Amino acid sequence: MSELRCNPVTGRWVIFAPERGHRPREVQSRLSPSTPAARFDPTCPFCPGNEGQLLGIIAETKSDREPGWLTRVVPNKFPAVGPAAAIHGRAANLYEAAAIDGSHEVLIESPRHDRDIACMPVQEAHDVLATCLSRYRVLMGLAAVQSVIVFRNRGSIAGASLPHPHSQLIALHFVPPLVRAREALMANYHRKMERCLLCDIVTYEQSDGSRIVAENDAFITLVPFAASVPCEIWILPKQHQADFADIQAEAIRLLAASQRDALVRLAQALDDPSYNYVIDTASKGSSDAPHLHWCLRILPQVTVPGGFELGSDLAINPSLPEEDAMMLRSSLPAMTEM
Amino acid sequence: MSELRCNPVTGRWVIFAPERGHRPREVQSRLSPSTPAARFDPTCPFCPGNEGQLLGIIAETKSDREPGWLTRVVPNKFPAVGPAAAIHGRAANLYEAAAIDGSHEVLIESPRHDRDIACMPVQEAHDVLATCLSRYRVLMGLAAVQSVIVFRNRGSIAGASLPHPHSQLIALHFVPPLVRAREALMANYHRKMERCLLCDIVTYEQSDGSRIVAENDAFITLVPFAASVPCEIWILPKQHQADFADIQAEAIRLLAASQRDALVRLAQALDDPSYNYVIDTASKGSSDAPHLHWCLRILPQVTVPGGFELGSDLAINPSLPEEDAMMLRSSLPAMTEM
Repeated sequence: MSELRCNPVTGRWVIFAPERGHRPREVQSRLSPSTPAARFDPTCPFCPGNEGQLLGIIAETKSDREPGWLTRVVPNKFPAVGPAAAIHGRAANLYEAAAIDGSHEVLIESPRHDRDIACMPVQEAHDVLATCLSRYRVLMGLAAVQSVIVFRNRGSIAGASLPHPHSQLIALHFVPPLVRAREALMANYHRKMERCLLCDIVTYEQSDGSRIVAENDAFITLVPFAASVPCEIWILPKQHQADFADIQAEAIRLLAASQRDALVRLAQALDDPSYNYVIDTASKGSSDAPHLHWCLRILPQVTVPGGFELGSDLAINPSLPEEDAMMLRSSLPAMTEM
Repeated sequence: MSELRCNPVTGRWVIFAPERGHRPREVQSRLSPSTPAARFDPTCPFCPGNEGQLLGIIAETKSDREPGWLTRVVPNKFPAVGPAAAIHGRAANLYEAAAIDGSHEVLIESPRHDRDIACMPVQEAHDVLATCLSRYRVLMGLAAVQSVIVFRNRGSIAGASLPHPHSQLIALHFVPPLVRAREALMANYHRKMERCLLCDIVTYEQSDGSRIVAENDAFITLVPFAASVPCEIWILPKQHQADFADIQAEAIRLLAASQRDALVRLAQALDDPSYNYVIDTASKGSSDAPHLHWCLRILPQVTVPGGFELGSDLAINPSLPEEDAMMLRSSLPAMTEM
């Protein structure tokens, strides 16, 4: 009883195979066994007092409410991109290679080792997003940077090597494949329909209702039509906006509320899962594009891709988006701070 | 000191970031804690005597050397694809969906619960491949089938839900995205160069030598130029051959030897890692294509993709293919049965 669906934003096809949901449990995705219980870990490089283990501090925010710092931005000690190096491997006609240049920053979201976004008051989650936005704007302002990927890995299954709550920004001197593919598909839709694809999705989903999880004045939270993993969540600005950098001051608080709400629902629905999130936003020079629309995308990691996915480039999702949305809608007693 | 390389067969770009290799260990990829120690597990549906837990037996091979069966093919109890169902979600212009039809078979590689390919004598590994080939030919012979993905997941981190050694075949009534992309890129190369891309890669790698791991009369084992994970391995027929179905009887034994050799080297080099393998081969009607060339691709799962990979569609490989190949070359004292 399987069904193929195409993600209109990326062109990726997903197999929905509900029968696979019944097979023996794959990996342990639940965070709790490895989730930090203590406020402070003397071995953690992100905990206060351990600054000697950092390569430096790029930025820091402080509160007028209490002493100490609120958030910090530091260089990643093990960067995925760095100053360009000489290229070894090229071979005419056969192999293409390029130098890659950029920078890799870590945003430490709290001095507290055990303080995750899902349990922060909205004001604190707002401060984290405000720091993120400010670094995003600084990095995109650099002449050489073409694209910045903002993301968060939570849990070792989702690629986090440290449990202290943090997100990351990778600035690139080129536009990576998925950002290019997304922009091309959205431009194509706009040429054909003379409307923004994600604006149309917001309108359609609001009228349909089956995949909506939550909503506030500025943002809509939904499970996408072709979710690639169980309980994938998109948080979309309801008004057209191409670039995350253009979010208004008052909307940051509403985004923090939507994000926290989504993470609390996920923790309840999937028993505190590991997850990734990423902000899909415009590349350099496209801030005013009528066809682009930014999105915060949350991907719980509760299934494991295997050889079939690696050989076909198809994702397999054992649960239906409409059922996941229903579960997520009912997984909070009431919307508190939305 | 990072470098970008493009996989000429898929068009995928990979970031090589050796500095990331030094960061704290991510997940436990090592099989041993979960690897079956016993020859027989009374709860395992693939062990002899537990046939009541199977949905049936599609095929079985027997030996003239000993009693019982050698290999079995059974229906997957939790299929990724099955008989087509009604489509719910379509929405004109916005959402595309399709019925998906196909079948999902499991090849049980040995009656023994603890018998992995890496520890089989070549004759036994040959029998597994011969069964696989015979099912591949049967499935590709069905009128509706357009493509068959042959793969193996070893270890829960690689998506295996059962430890009893097995591989899988998924037959599809359409050609999946990666198979189409591969065929398009290889056709494009052939139009430009009037030669087969993978034949050219075999020739180039033999003359270069830095990425070769092993070789026998029919197959070459190498780490590809743009390996997407540490110690990715390709086993390629040295002579042009588009379709895995066309492998000659005598070459099966050499493929079994190459495959076993590669898995033993991997187990030594990466401390018995979880891995996936997949056979990239021609879709229906392309068996004689001058531009296609099949390949067995092994992907150890020792790194975890995170939000950056999900937001950019770039892979990050912390180790260089040339260094991985050197390590794999030296990880066996001598070639025994190649």
